Amino acid sequence: MPARVQIREVGPRDGFQNEPERIPTDDKIRLIEDLARAGFRRLEVASFVRSDVIPQLDDAIEVLHGVDVPGDVELRVLVPNERGLQIALEHRDTFHDVVIFVSASETHNRKNVNRPVAASLAALERMAPVIKGAGLRCSATVATAFGCPFEGVVDPARVLDLASRLAEAGCDELGFGDTTGMANPVQVRSFFAEALRTLPGIELTAHFHNTRGQGLANAVAALDAGVTSFESSFGELGGCPIPPGATGNIASEDLVSMLEEMGVATGVDLDALLHAARAVQTLLGRPLTSHVLVAGPVDWSGGGARRTS
Amino acid sequence: MPARVQIREVGPRDGFQNEPERIPTDDKIRLIEDLARAGFRRLEVASFVRSDVIPQLDDAIEVLHGVDVPGDVELRVLVPNERGLQIALEHRDTFHDVVIFVSASETHNRKNVNRPVAASLAALERMAPVIKGAGLRCSATVATAFGCPFEGVVDPARVLDLASRLAEAGCDELGFGDTTGMANPVQVRSFFAEALRTLPGIELTAHFHNTRGQGLANAVAALDAGVTSFESSFGELGGCPIPPGATGNIASEDLVSMLEEMGVATGVDLDALLHAARAVQTLLGRPLTSHVLVAGPVDWSGGGARRTS
Repeated sequence: MPARVQIREVGPRDGFQNEPERIPTDDKIRLIEDLARAGFRRLEVASFVRSDVIPQLDDAIEVLHGVDVPGDVELRVLVPNERGLQIALEHRDTFHDVVIFVSASETHNRKNVNRPVAASLAALERMAPVIKGAGLRCSATVATAFGCPFEGVVDPARVLDLASRLAEAGCDELGFGDTTGMANPVQVRSFFAEALRTLPGIELTAHFHNTRGQGLANAVAALDAGVTSFESSFGELGGCPIPPGATGNIASEDLVSMLEEMGVATGVDLDALLHAARAVQTLLGRPLTSHVLVAGPVDWSGGGARRTS
Repeated sequence: MPARVQIREVGPRDGFQNEPERIPTDDKIRLIEDLARAGFRRLEVASFVRSDVIPQLDDAIEVLHGVDVPGDVELRVLVPNERGLQIALEHRDTFHDVVIFVSASETHNRKNVNRPVAASLAALERMAPVIKGAGLRCSATVATAFGCPFEGVVDPARVLDLASRLAEAGCDELGFGDTTGMANPVQVRSFFAEALRTLPGIELTAHFHNTRGQGLANAVAALDAGVTSFESSFGELGGCPIPPGATGNIASEDLVSMLEEMGVATGVDLDALLHAARAVQTLLGRPLTSHVLVAGPVDWSGGGARRTS
């Protein structure tokens, strides 16, 4: 097991995006600052998508200008296309990392961004050098990397081919998303072992969903293969759960709890993270479903029983 | 990874026991038969506890005499003490396996059965030969094997010492329970690697809870260590969740789904198991929380998206 991993908290983008009720900009800013205070050094906080597509994220500029986080916290924005990148770059001093994305499966890509994979890839290959040229870090995510709800099996060779092209285009980090929670630990170990051989010297990030309860098992499988970069969402927010009511992203508090218990340092203070998760639960006005939020952290002092009784 | 594992379905005992509303005996029998039809060859179906302590299980004898399952299905009963064993043995033709138990931690054992660990162990050492003498299989479970909510850390050496004593007393199978979901995958791998060295030639069974979302990750860790026997509960029923509302036992449908996806045969038909889980959900009249029950199985044909849309 590695001594330390990086966890990127994606709730303020991937989580909030799924919320039907408007979250006030000030609350977004406060929660992002809570998450930075909990110890996350990587936060995905905004998206430059068209506001008629995702109105919830139309305050990206206000959020980016409003947050006050320590200098070593890397803020990331998502851009869906070259137009979004153009707008984002007008505010390039407010963030550090841009994530661009493509689906490994043709049908998912068309349903998600209304164009073929080849067209998305070509655009990403144009965008990556622009992002790097602006002095920013460039991440790319391959969605449906472990299976597609529309096409079923996704060939790992196709995923790695896309990833190699994005690495050649200059990306600093490549993420692989189990977009609808189809991955299993054997598949994950095998995939990341091959990915680490194929893509040496580039950071590989695992993004799992807990749709079928296997999210943390997949995270351990990725760790076993040598992955040390993960993404998760506080309060188990987001991840476009399919069907509605299912689980989407793995919960940051569940991932942090497990890793710290395993002796793998995350840099995140679990109590402070739970404070942020409780704050967003209060704000959203519904019970959130992450396990550690409900059950509390493991207490090896024997005090857990008193606390919960 | 092993080609095949054994899963014991414990819902009809460990799950039903936690239900406040009376479940009619006929419904219990029907659900047990559904579970046998799904492919489980090991079912824990009854308990010989005092009916004033757990009224829900006071129909153990009617259940045992009423169920009609294939000849290769092994039915197990739980007995808490010598008095319970005496009553159970009056019906010895109706089941195949008796499980006896002790907690590894002093405080949990006292709170659970109102006696010190040494007294429980001495009773179990008397009961095992009686069970074997009656021509029955004898299993013993060590509870709080990975941590105790009252005492915190539980020394693995103490757990293995208890297990060795129970093996010497004649037990055929030793189970280790993560009674309040404190275990993590590193701990589980290390524990079972040592247990398999210490206790050669005896079946070792892993019983995990999903209290902090790590249940399936712990199951994979146990598999990695060489464990091929697991327990779980359909519909994610039971497991005395602490605090109330938290998750208890890992769900059979989540475990079966993950293992089958990993290429590890369970002998269980997932669709038939989901049928049983939906049946108990209807009977109990509340939404159950297992992931695969909510999200449906992984569909590699690409039909999943159609089904859920």
